[in-house]
Amino acid sequence: MKKLVNSPETVVADALRGLAAAHPELAVSPAEGIVTRASGPVPGKVALLSGGGSGHEPLHAGFVGPGMLDAAVCGPVFTSPVPDAVARATAAVDSGAGVLHIVKNYTGDVLNFTMAAEDSADDGVRVARVVVDDDVAVTPAEGGPGRRGTGATLFVEKIAGALAEQGAPLDAVASVARKVNERSRSYGVALTSCTTPAKGSPTFELGDGDMELGIGIHGEPGRARSPLLPAADTARLMLDTILADLPGPSDDPVILLVNGLGGTPPIELYIMRAEAERVLSSHGIRIARSLVGTYVTSLDMAGCTFTLCRADPELLRLWDAPVSTPALRWGG
Amino acid sequence: MKKLVNSPETVVADALRGLAAAHPELAVSPAEGIVTRASGPVPGKVALLSGGGSGHEPLHAGFVGPGMLDAAVCGPVFTSPVPDAVARATAAVDSGAGVLHIVKNYTGDVLNFTMAAEDSADDGVRVARVVVDDDVAVTPAEGGPGRRGTGATLFVEKIAGALAEQGAPLDAVASVARKVNERSRSYGVALTSCTTPAKGSPTFELGDGDMELGIGIHGEPGRARSPLLPAADTARLMLDTILADLPGPSDDPVILLVNGLGGTPPIELYIMRAEAERVLSSHGIRIARSLVGTYVTSLDMAGCTFTLCRADPELLRLWDAPVSTPALRWGG
Repeated sequence: MKKLVNSPETVVADALRGLAAAHPELAVSPAEGIVTRASGPVPGKVALLSGGGSGHEPLHAGFVGPGMLDAAVCGPVFTSPVPDAVARATAAVDSGAGVLHIVKNYTGDVLNFTMAAEDSADDGVRVARVVVDDDVAVTPAEGGPGRRGTGATLFVEKIAGALAEQGAPLDAVASVARKVNERSRSYGVALTSCTTPAKGSPTFELGDGDMELGIGIHGEPGRARSPLLPAADTARLMLDTILADLPGPSDDPVILLVNGLGGTPPIELYIMRAEAERVLSSHGIRIARSLVGTYVTSLDMAGCTFTLCRADPELLRLWDAPVSTPALRWGG
Repeated sequence: MKKLVNSPETVVADALRGLAAAHPELAVSPAEGIVTRASGPVPGKVALLSGGGSGHEPLHAGFVGPGMLDAAVCGPVFTSPVPDAVARATAAVDSGAGVLHIVKNYTGDVLNFTMAAEDSADDGVRVARVVVDDDVAVTPAEGGPGRRGTGATLFVEKIAGALAEQGAPLDAVASVARKVNERSRSYGVALTSCTTPAKGSPTFELGDGDMELGIGIHGEPGRARSPLLPAADTARLMLDTILADLPGPSDDPVILLVNGLGGTPPIELYIMRAEAERVLSSHGIRIARSLVGTYVTSLDMAGCTFTLCRADPELLRLWDAPVSTPALRWGG
């Protein structure tokens, strides 16, 4: 296993020690896997909490700060945090205005956040929830848990975070979070598997000339395999798949995320951004805003995901609002 | 070759098309490899221009914008841009206050920027130059071209860019750029080779259990090979090597860059940040500021570089000044 780590057991705590060292504006508990703003709860503000297994950095801890999250709860690699940690973080960030849990649609996360929300309610904290399910590679029609939560989580955290920062009440913040999720869809491809620190070898095998289509972010193989395609064809396949399932008014422009999965460098992501421009303009779709970078990873996987969100003026205004976190920062 | 590209010949132009699509605040010529601010030269301001071979993204084009560069000139992958392109970009950004060329210490870059500066001078543009040479893995004592330019380029561009934005004259901007370079040193390790699009296979072979010490950013092998070390030992080796050659007052704190080489995900970079904290504090060195991310790449190489700069109050003040570029953004 080729990683800059000390041991498989300490990967998450070690990375959180680094986050703490680099970002004194965050309060970080490496042992508990809890990251909050060092300045404490903002009086009267609805708090946003997200979390899940680690291995997706900078999601979620890198998005804690003004304009986005109040807390991130970091489980072991690819493993949901325990309900007790989520409940403790919820209590820590509640100012009395309530807490929105942003949960990616995986069985373990949904279960543990449900238990945490019940515990928090027992303690008198109002909790609302949005479950993010944007990955079109897995469909609800298959009868399983439905679409997986991936890149749209960033959109939900940014846009709902902006509304919360402006003082909106819990039901309004939850409502805009659900609106973003409903208007967002994602699809990903991989050129390599990832390697989890615990297993120490790739989670699936992939030939030198092949790529994996419809991958998730937990080392599971894709839904199909293909000979390696040029960037232009890859982008068209990804976007055609997304557009076939993208809700929202078709004359609204989109916010586009071109996301690297951990092992893909910026030069390739910008090539994919160029191809996305070409494909979407051929469909008559305007890209109102875009973000190109490594935001939702699957450890060291080489590959790329696209996320589109049909954005109306409200969502664009909230997208543009100032944000100041380790991994996303603009305005103000 | 596993890359999201269309063809080896179009990699740089395709990526620049993506940069243009994502960043309307930049003026991008994919054919010429020139990136400037779309708003044009800032009246009365000294302009900063950098460039070199591509494959190091976001360096340099991702650092064009207020508070940092006025122009980036992008050559083919790992190949210096031609003098004519540098001279044209120099003319395009000169407001009359002169242009600082920030050149990484490689034979081709130094030669081509020298010729470009002569052409620019013939055209009546005042050009000053700083050559960045921070990589301690190659020493001037070896009799070659001396230390290579790597991560300190970001420090030079940020800090000199801030001073230029504040209206300082060319000689002062060049002087602070040289001061930053003189106080900065870097060292890098790799867990994999990179693969250039033209060659299509790794530029050096490296066993599954080995790492490469003292690598450069152009696919050249390191100065030594070692069995893969834990992050803690890797960080100590890197920082001990840097500190043995780091000039500047030993009671000044440092600015630390923990940089990913393209194929290394954020979770590992934050682990390296944690270990850097431990090593530097054991030396009694305070980290005044730090930056953790993928800033100076060697295509898809997995690995990490550290850069330290001994920072006095002037350098810290300029480091903290607002910056607004695709890849670096804070304040203001």
